[in-house]
Amino acid sequence: MTNEVHTHDKPVIGVLMGSSSDWDVMKNAVAILQEFGVPYEAKVVSAHRMPDEMFAYAESARGRGIVAIIAGAGGAAHLPGMLAAKTTLPVLGVPVASRYLKGVDSLHSIVQMPKGVPVATFAIGEAGAANAALFAVSILSATDSKYADALAAFRVKQNQAARDMALPPL
Amino acid sequence: MTNEVHTHDKPVIGVLMGSSSDWDVMKNAVAILQEFGVPYEAKVVSAHRMPDEMFAYAESARGRGIVAIIAGAGGAAHLPGMLAAKTTLPVLGVPVASRYLKGVDSLHSIVQMPKGVPVATFAIGEAGAANAALFAVSILSATDSKYADALAAFRVKQNQAARDMALPPL
Amino acid sequence: MTNEVHTHDKPVIGVLMGSSSDWDVMKNAVAILQEFGVPYEAKVVSAHRMPDEMFAYAESARGRGIVAIIAGAGGAAHLPGMLAAKTTLPVLGVPVASRYLKGVDSLHSIVQMPKGVPVATFAIGEAGAANAALFAVSILSATDSKYADALAAFRVKQNQAARDMALPPL
Amino acid sequence: MTNEVHTHDKPVIGVLMGSSSDWDVMKNAVAILQEFGVPYEAKVVSAHRMPDEMFAYAESARGRGIVAIIAGAGGAAHLPGMLAAKTTLPVLGVPVASRYLKGVDSLHSIVQMPKGVPVATFAIGEAGAANAALFAVSILSATDSKYADALAAFRVKQNQAARDMALPPL
Amino acid sequence: MTNEVHTHDKPVIGVLMGSSSDWDVMKNAVAILQEFGVPYEAKVVSAHRMPDEMFAYAESARGRGIVAIIAGAGGAAHLPGMLAAKTTLPVLGVPVASRYLKGVDSLHSIVQMPKGVPVATFAIGEAGAANAALFAVSILSATDSKYADALAAFRVKQNQAARDMALPPL
Amino acid sequence: MTNEVHTHDKPVIGVLMGSSSDWDVMKNAVAILQEFGVPYEAKVVSAHRMPDEMFAYAESARGRGIVAIIAGAGGAAHLPGMLAAKTTLPVLGVPVASRYLKGVDSLHSIVQMPKGVPVATFAIGEAGAANAALFAVSILSATDSKYADALAAFRVKQNQAARDMALPPL
Amino acid sequence: MTNEVHTHDKPVIGVLMGSSSDWDVMKNAVAILQEFGVPYEAKVVSAHRMPDEMFAYAESARGRGIVAIIAGAGGAAHLPGMLAAKTTLPVLGVPVASRYLKGVDSLHSIVQMPKGVPVATFAIGEAGAANAALFAVSILSATDSKYADALAAFRVKQNQAARDMALPPL
Amino acid sequence: MTNEVHTHDKPVIGVLMGSSSDWDVMKNAVAILQEFGVPYEAKVVSAHRMPDEMFAYAESARGRGIVAIIAGAGGAAHLPGMLAAKTTLPVLGVPVASRYLKGVDSLHSIVQMPKGVPVATFAIGEAGAANAALFAVSILSATDSKYADALAAFRVKQNQAARDMALPPL
Repeated sequence: MTNEVHTHDKPVIGVLMGSSSDWDVMKNAVAILQEFGVPYEAKVVSAHRMPDEMFAYAESARGRGIVAIIAGAGGAAHLPGMLAAKTTLPVLGVPVASRYLKGVDSLHSIVQMPKGVPVATFAIGEAGAANAALFAVSILSATDSKYADALAAFRVKQNQAARDMALPPL
Repeated sequence: MTNEVHTHDKPVIGVLMGSSSDWDVMKNAVAILQEFGVPYEAKVVSAHRMPDEMFAYAESARGRGIVAIIAGAGGAAHLPGMLAAKTTLPVLGVPVASRYLKGVDSLHSIVQMPKGVPVATFAIGEAGAANAALFAVSILSATDSKYADALAAFRVKQNQAARDMALPPL
Repeated sequence: MTNEVHTHDKPVIGVLMGSSSDWDVMKNAVAILQEFGVPYEAKVVSAHRMPDEMFAYAESARGRGIVAIIAGAGGAAHLPGMLAAKTTLPVLGVPVASRYLKGVDSLHSIVQMPKGVPVATFAIGEAGAANAALFAVSILSATDSKYADALAAFRVKQNQAARDMALPPL
Repeated sequence: MTNEVHTHDKPVIGVLMGSSSDWDVMKNAVAILQEFGVPYEAKVVSAHRMPDEMFAYAESARGRGIVAIIAGAGGAAHLPGMLAAKTTLPVLGVPVASRYLKGVDSLHSIVQMPKGVPVATFAIGEAGAANAALFAVSILSATDSKYADALAAFRVKQNQAARDMALPPL
Repeated sequence: MTNEVHTHDKPVIGVLMGSSSDWDVMKNAVAILQEFGVPYEAKVVSAHRMPDEMFAYAESARGRGIVAIIAGAGGAAHLPGMLAAKTTLPVLGVPVASRYLKGVDSLHSIVQMPKGVPVATFAIGEAGAANAALFAVSILSATDSKYADALAAFRVKQNQAARDMALPPL
Repeated sequence: MTNEVHTHDKPVIGVLMGSSSDWDVMKNAVAILQEFGVPYEAKVVSAHRMPDEMFAYAESARGRGIVAIIAGAGGAAHLPGMLAAKTTLPVLGVPVASRYLKGVDSLHSIVQMPKGVPVATFAIGEAGAANAALFAVSILSATDSKYADALAAFRVKQNQAARDMALPPL
Repeated sequence: MTNEVHTHDKPVIGVLMGSSSDWDVMKNAVAILQEFGVPYEAKVVSAHRMPDEMFAYAESARGRGIVAIIAGAGGAAHLPGMLAAKTTLPVLGVPVASRYLKGVDSLHSIVQMPKGVPVATFAIGEAGAANAALFAVSILSATDSKYADALAAFRVKQNQAARDMALPPL
Repeated sequence: MTNEVHTHDKPVIGVLMGSSSDWDVMKNAVAILQEFGVPYEAKVVSAHRMPDEMFAYAESARGRGIVAIIAGAGGAAHLPGMLAAKTTLPVLGVPVASRYLKGVDSLHSIVQMPKGVPVATFAIGEAGAANAALFAVSILSATDSKYADALAAFRVKQNQAARDMALPPL
């Protein structure tokens, strides 16, 4: 185990999460980035327990070549919104389900940002994490046709997999 | 009045909405795009009443030079998700408040997309529309430093405006 | 296993679902159709992963003799509403429970359709799937007294079963 | 004013509501039925204040030639479900918004029917009432191509109206 | 097992439930009635599967000496409200938790009764069932001091039990 | 204006509310009691601002001849539950709508009582207040046939009024 | 108007809000502080538009003699939680009602803080703002009996006002 | 086991809970108080089953040297609010998750206090209990720099633990 997961390339996507307990959800984002060969870094940055490190990360991200930040958090989930307050890079928020409210609180805390500081929000949990990563690839595809092609291929494969889904007997 | 609002440039952002009744919300996206000088087009494309036109729009968007689509809809809001099913471009969803459920239904219909087809979701209503546009600018900023600079300037101005906010006497 | 379940007759009811993972819920609809001897077909058609196949299904359904479509989906559940956008046949929607929001999102995405494109919505989960099928039989009963009689008999049996329910000792 | 609204033909659709205060919502169903030339009757039948009349209505409906019943109610909305308990005709429920809970209670009371007694549920309020009527027409269209043609024409007109929607200037 | 549970006395409290699957909750009401020596009867009466039996029960209850009816049901829970529509006896409703919505739907369907037909509603699940029975005893205590004394003693015992609750070590 | 409203008879029903601002709701209870000729008293007793007076009221109520207490409160509505903690009389709770949460909070605070201390809960707002009073009459009807007769007459009148409801033209 | 409201004394309570539009709610906190003669300062500090100023405020607050911070914010309300992340002073959060979700989002964003960084949360809106200030006075009362006496007197006055509340005639 | 847990010092913080079943949550508060060396007492005081003992506790708390009361309760959670009605000490409320509504009811019952009687509310469950205790320490830190230092050290340690969190391999 290591407190940072990253590829050898200069990372272009940062995957942050408020706690290592968010990893089971957020690894779905990392898996997509790996599948698409996107250079990334993944680390724990807690808004409430590491506020200064969070600000430092956001401030330096664009200069370090980061193109978008994926941030997952649960409950009173302030990580995506506060990153967005400190950078003009695209911030993609993933609501991690909380123990009792099941992510309704996380969703509200991430999506209901005030005018002026956007956070792009995805579904609660695993699907949201994977989709945030796919969305990051779609951002990259705007200027790199390699990713546009890869996304198109991903969709074709996904379509075929759905078409091949079999229903068991009653 | 016209059924399309657009600038003279080849549009890079498409702003779609399910009905002209969504304009009061979605014009907040258009105002931001104008403020940042982003070439855009705005039009009514209803998922339920114009399904074929919706698919045609999504299919042709990347080829026409569109970089991201902002889509606003209310209630059982299927427009953003179905556009996303038909294009690999970034789709930005804006939940428009419904009459009785006040956008809780719109938010659920937009943000809870299944793994494989992402929609970036923003806040319910006016703030969400404006933020979707700001987020679109941040996507453009990844490869055009003009927009990065403009966003930075927007933040400075916004910060100053907040600092200048005065409280009236009791 | 097969990716289509159907009876030998020309199907009159189509049972669609967004994923094979919806089968545990949707098989409750199929079981009812079998019990009433209704010709049906069941298959996976995903709104988001198979949008073109979905449109093709809806466009051809009436011509193929389908009388009503039962569609189950979860989360941002767009399948029933988009089928309804492409056919004037009765579309019966079944909200499948999502992992975290337990089908509240599915219900909102299905029932809150805008004026002009109706989806008949049933309860979340197994009960809703069975009831959608019973409702399909009631549509058929309008013109086929065989089904009216079968429904009446079903109710008598159901009444007797409820009357026979015994309470265990404390 | 009269306590029954009906056309001269033998009615095929019954439109019931729990109180005359539901009329503002339920008249949207009646307007659609009139537009399509469907013979109907509309009346107040309260589940809680007219339980015996409600049962009598449900028991006699099929014999009187009614093909489907549209029932609107609010709060602890028992009318659609209790009608469905007493007839095997298709029952279409419309949740009328309640004063404080805005129809969330009405929706739950109508849609969450137990296995065995289905109610087809539509959106809260005006849109739901109109859609229940359109859905009733779609039931009729299964055996009467006149209604299938009329629905197709309705959709064409609706599509054109959406395409003609103009956006005002900013 | 038997489909009716009752004491030897002429019952004064009826405990009804929509299904034998509600017994795990509703037996908490029966246990309280037994503890207080209240003559009761318990049986399955389903609003949707046994509508005529339900009406017959309500119509005959006062004449048979029943003083109050406790009714438990889940989902679109119509049993308490429809009993109340057919009798002027006190009806006590217990929301049984539904599978997906956990009784929020049951609660709405029971408590939100329209003006004119009251249902006294208690907490979702076991606590609500027990409390409905205690409340029934309090109704009886208005005219039978034996029950007033028994309730007072119950409270003293309950108070002592709470005071004796020990906290384990950390 | 007076801080107590009461009839000349020895009151048998107490109508309490947390604030005079609850009167617009709670007067619907008083109107029913007057209509049925039930001796009552109505007064402001705030759980949070008059805790000792609240306890004193509850402790003395049975001895003073009170048969049931109707208590209305909003928000964190503790009045009904705390009265019930201090008396074994039937306590009937009316959730008054709060400003922002519209009575969802009031309902939760009143209905979700723990096992051992029941509060009979009615609908949010005016309908709930009227129904609590009708329910109080039904308690009295257990031992006073005058009230049973009056309730039966009330139902007949209510039925006729519903049957006479006319629908305006479209 | 001025962008800071403060008394002449060295402030011991800071009242912050995310926008001047929160003033209508937050002035209820200020009014209580004035009534109790508590030195305070009130100012706009936006978490999202003034993140650095927010951190600077939190870092310097204890050193400047601030004893507690009252922070009001709406929607994705990050101000109270991020202040709490940067100071060990007591932070009191007031959820300001948002336009569409009426403060449910604000409440979730403020109260659901993770273990380790507490925010004391009060009711949505005006009552919450006033109560946060009363709570701040109670903190001060721990070591300054002047405030304990003032709170006791406030309660006596409040009790008398409630006891004097008169009910208007029906 | 004992029905009171306390340290040898004169307690300054009271930790109350409505039932010993709340201990699994509330022990998280006690663990924090022990970690910071804060003299405390912990005991079961039920609002509904021990109302007089609850009032006696609140009335005597300030005189006994208690500086703040932490109170946890679930469902219709009246303990924190009623303690606050009887003392001007700071009352810190912890919503304990209820069986079916998962603490949404508890949260509403605790946080939505009316103007005039504040309860500082924390997150649902374990995190809220721990945070209430940390907040109590922050109150003590206003006048005892020992606790200010200890809180600062706690934050440093917490920051380091978050920074050391490692992510497992995919």
